[in-house]
Amino acid sequence: MMSSIKKMVLAWQGNFRFVARNEKGLSVDFDAPVPNGGEEAALSPMENVLASLAACSSYHVVSILRKKRQEFSDYSVEMTADRRDEPPRVFTRIHLKYFVRGKKISEEAVKSAIKLSEEKYCSVGGMLKSAVEITSSYEISQE
Amino acid sequence: MMSSIKKMVLAWQGNFRFVARNEKGLSVDFDAPVPNGGEEAALSPMENVLASLAACSSYHVVSILRKKRQEFSDYSVEMTADRRDEPPRVFTRIHLKYFVRGKKISEEAVKSAIKLSEEKYCSVGGMLKSAVEITSSYEISQE
Repeated sequence: MMSSIKKMVLAWQGNFRFVARNEKGLSVDFDAPVPNGGEEAALSPMENVLASLAACSSYHVVSILRKKRQEFSDYSVEMTADRRDEPPRVFTRIHLKYFVRGKKISEEAVKSAIKLSEEKYCSVGGMLKSAVEITSSYEISQE
Repeated sequence: MMSSIKKMVLAWQGNFRFVARNEKGLSVDFDAPVPNGGEEAALSPMENVLASLAACSSYHVVSILRKKRQEFSDYSVEMTADRRDEPPRVFTRIHLKYFVRGKKISEEAVKSAIKLSEEKYCSVGGMLKSAVEITSSYEISQE
């Protein structure tokens, strides 16, 4: 089985602020919520993971919808996550609700794009789903 | 068991660019690598997850080092991840190398901070470790 290697560096920026960079210099900032001693200058790591799940799945959903010639003008995902209050404060359940707006959007295409993304392609979901119950739904708005 | 709920929204920004926002308006951007059709305007979802693991663990490591009165002046983490080339393109192994620089840094304190973070507190690690082999090491530089 082939594999590739990814390298990144995280640097401390004072208090609970951190910045992570990849080899091309692209970066993401992190901070902690105020009740946890942070200043809320950026999303927390757990918020970033939740966002990454939606973004990863959406990359594949958008990619498949394009291949199926679906002309969407707007696309978004609402995420709702239940989080344990005791450490480790993991997500126990995540629901993703996909919104697709456009002309003559096929429900079948949306349904199968989401299914393919979640069951086969989305790598963030592929890592999380053994620990977190992930469900989804969708809403289509015809223009 | 108590739990809390987190809500976020991901919005499509054209091509493979997305932005995710929490309820306070804090956001993170995503893009895809050029070979995958993106423009590399931001980190990919998988890079964000890797960064989030290091940031989550570091929040706890830094927090514990402070409680143990360790006067560090610099702190960083190098991440190395092996990723499958076939879908789902999950990480199969992640190594975190922690770097702590400061005055009279106790190796015992660093070791136990990393252990507590990884085994008990870090919630991103708590979700990933059933799917990914996560290892770590550290290097201390005395000032």
